[in-house]
Amino acid sequence: MTGKLTVVGLGPGSPLQLTPEADAVVRNADDLFGYGPYLDRLPERAAQRRHLSDNRQEMQRAEEALKSAAAGNCVAVVSGGDPGVFGMAAAVCEALEQGPADWRHIEIAIIPGVSAMLAVAARVGAPLGHDFCALSLSDNLKPWETVERRLELAATAGFVIALYNPISRARPWQLDRAFEKLRAILPATTVVVFGRAAGRSDERIAITQLAQAHGGNADMATCIIVGSAETRLVERPGTAPLVYTPRGTSRPAA
Amino acid sequence: MTGKLTVVGLGPGSPLQLTPEADAVVRNADDLFGYGPYLDRLPERAAQRRHLSDNRQEMQRAEEALKSAAAGNCVAVVSGGDPGVFGMAAAVCEALEQGPADWRHIEIAIIPGVSAMLAVAARVGAPLGHDFCALSLSDNLKPWETVERRLELAATAGFVIALYNPISRARPWQLDRAFEKLRAILPATTVVVFGRAAGRSDERIAITQLAQAHGGNADMATCIIVGSAETRLVERPGTAPLVYTPRGTSRPAA
Repeated sequence: MTGKLTVVGLGPGSPLQLTPEADAVVRNADDLFGYGPYLDRLPERAAQRRHLSDNRQEMQRAEEALKSAAAGNCVAVVSGGDPGVFGMAAAVCEALEQGPADWRHIEIAIIPGVSAMLAVAARVGAPLGHDFCALSLSDNLKPWETVERRLELAATAGFVIALYNPISRARPWQLDRAFEKLRAILPATTVVVFGRAAGRSDERIAITQLAQAHGGNADMATCIIVGSAETRLVERPGTAPLVYTPRGTSRPAA
Repeated sequence: MTGKLTVVGLGPGSPLQLTPEADAVVRNADDLFGYGPYLDRLPERAAQRRHLSDNRQEMQRAEEALKSAAAGNCVAVVSGGDPGVFGMAAAVCEALEQGPADWRHIEIAIIPGVSAMLAVAARVGAPLGHDFCALSLSDNLKPWETVERRLELAATAGFVIALYNPISRARPWQLDRAFEKLRAILPATTVVVFGRAAGRSDERIAITQLAQAHGGNADMATCIIVGSAETRLVERPGTAPLVYTPRGTSRPAA
C-alpha cells in the first residue's frame, strides 16, 4: 500500500497568512515532518505523529518522509513560507529521484504558501514591484564564487534582489561580502530592507541604505531586499515611509 | 476624515488558496477596486460598492481608490496572486507619491498572497527550488531592449526564470523572441513549464523543452517557468513527471 506525501507551505508565521488548503493538509496528516520551530507552530493532535529534525537535515528528513509515505501513511512535510522557495519541495524531489524505484508510485503534492520575501515586501510597500530575483546566500551547497557572480549579474541587470539564508553562526561573513560586492555596482543610496519574522509577534523591519547596510542587522530568520537603482522611498508624516519599485523604467539595462 | 486603503492579494484563484487575512479585508471593505475578473471572484455584498476597471488602467484605478480612502472610506484594491509582484501595490505607491500631500496621511496596508509562479511551480514539483528571477515580458512600461538584456543576464547567471505578462493581443511576438534569446544561451533540453490558471477549474499545465517552446502555448493568464541548465525532470509511471531544480550546484557561474 502506498500513501501520500504533501509538502506544505505554512507561510510567514501568522495563522492569518496560512491558506485553508495548507491548514487542511496539516490537520489531516498521520505524520508530520519538519524543522522543530515550524512544527511548533502547529497544535499537537492526539492521532498525529510528529517527526522533528534539525535545520540542516533536509535530505534525511525528505527520505524519512518518503519512507513513511511508501509504507502507506498520509504524510505532510512542512516548510515555513513557500515550500518551493528554498524550502522542502526540492529536497523531497531530489530524494525521490535518488531513492528506490517504488517511491515513484507515491502520490506527491505541493501546497504553496506566502514566501518570506512577499511578506517582508508587503510590510514596507512594494519593493518587488518590478523585475526581481531571489538568491540564497548559503554557500553550503554552491561555491561562494557562484553567489558573487549571481549578485553581480543581478545588480547589473537592474533586478531588485531578495536574499534568503543571509547569515548563520556557520556563515558569519558572507552577507557583508555580498553588500560590499553590491556597493561596487549600485548607488550608495540604494534602499535596503531587513525583514525579520514578518507578520509575527517578534517582527522586526528596518529600512536603510546600501552604504549603511551591514550583516549585524540580520539573523537566520531575516529576509533582505536590496532595491534596484530605481527603488524609491516615500516619506509620510508620523508613520513609516513606503518603499516601492516603479512598474516601469525608461532606463536601458547596463 | 481619512480612511484606509488596503491592497489585497487574492492568490491564484481557488478560495482554498486565499489567506484568512485577505478574506477578512475583502469582506469588511466599503469599496472594492479592481480588474473585473478579479472582482468577479468575490461574492456581491449589499453594503459594498464595487469599482471595476480594465486591465491596463492601473494608475487610474489606484488614484480613484486613494481618493475614496482620502474621503474616509475603508477601501480594498484587489490583485490576483500577490499584489506586490506585478500587481497593484506598486501602482498605489506610485500614485500616492505623485498625488496631493494629504494622501500621505491615508493608512496604507498591503496583504500578501500566493503569487502565480509559486502556484505553477507547486503543480509540477519545485522548479523554483534554487536561485530564480521573476521578469515581466511587457514592454509597455520599459524598453524591449531592457527585457532582452535582463533575460540574457539572468540565463547567464544560472537563474531559473519566471515570466509574467508573457503575451497579449497587443504584444504578440515578444514571447517567441524571448525564447529565441534564451535558446542562444541555455541547452535545447532546458525544461519549460507553461502554467495557466493554476488551482482553478480551467487550469492548464504543460511541460516542454526550450527547443519546442513557443508563444502559441500561452495567453495572458499564463505564467511560464524556464528552468536553468540544472533543472531536472523525474519521470513517474502512470502520472505526470516532477520538475525540480536541485538546492545546490557545483557548477561555477559563467
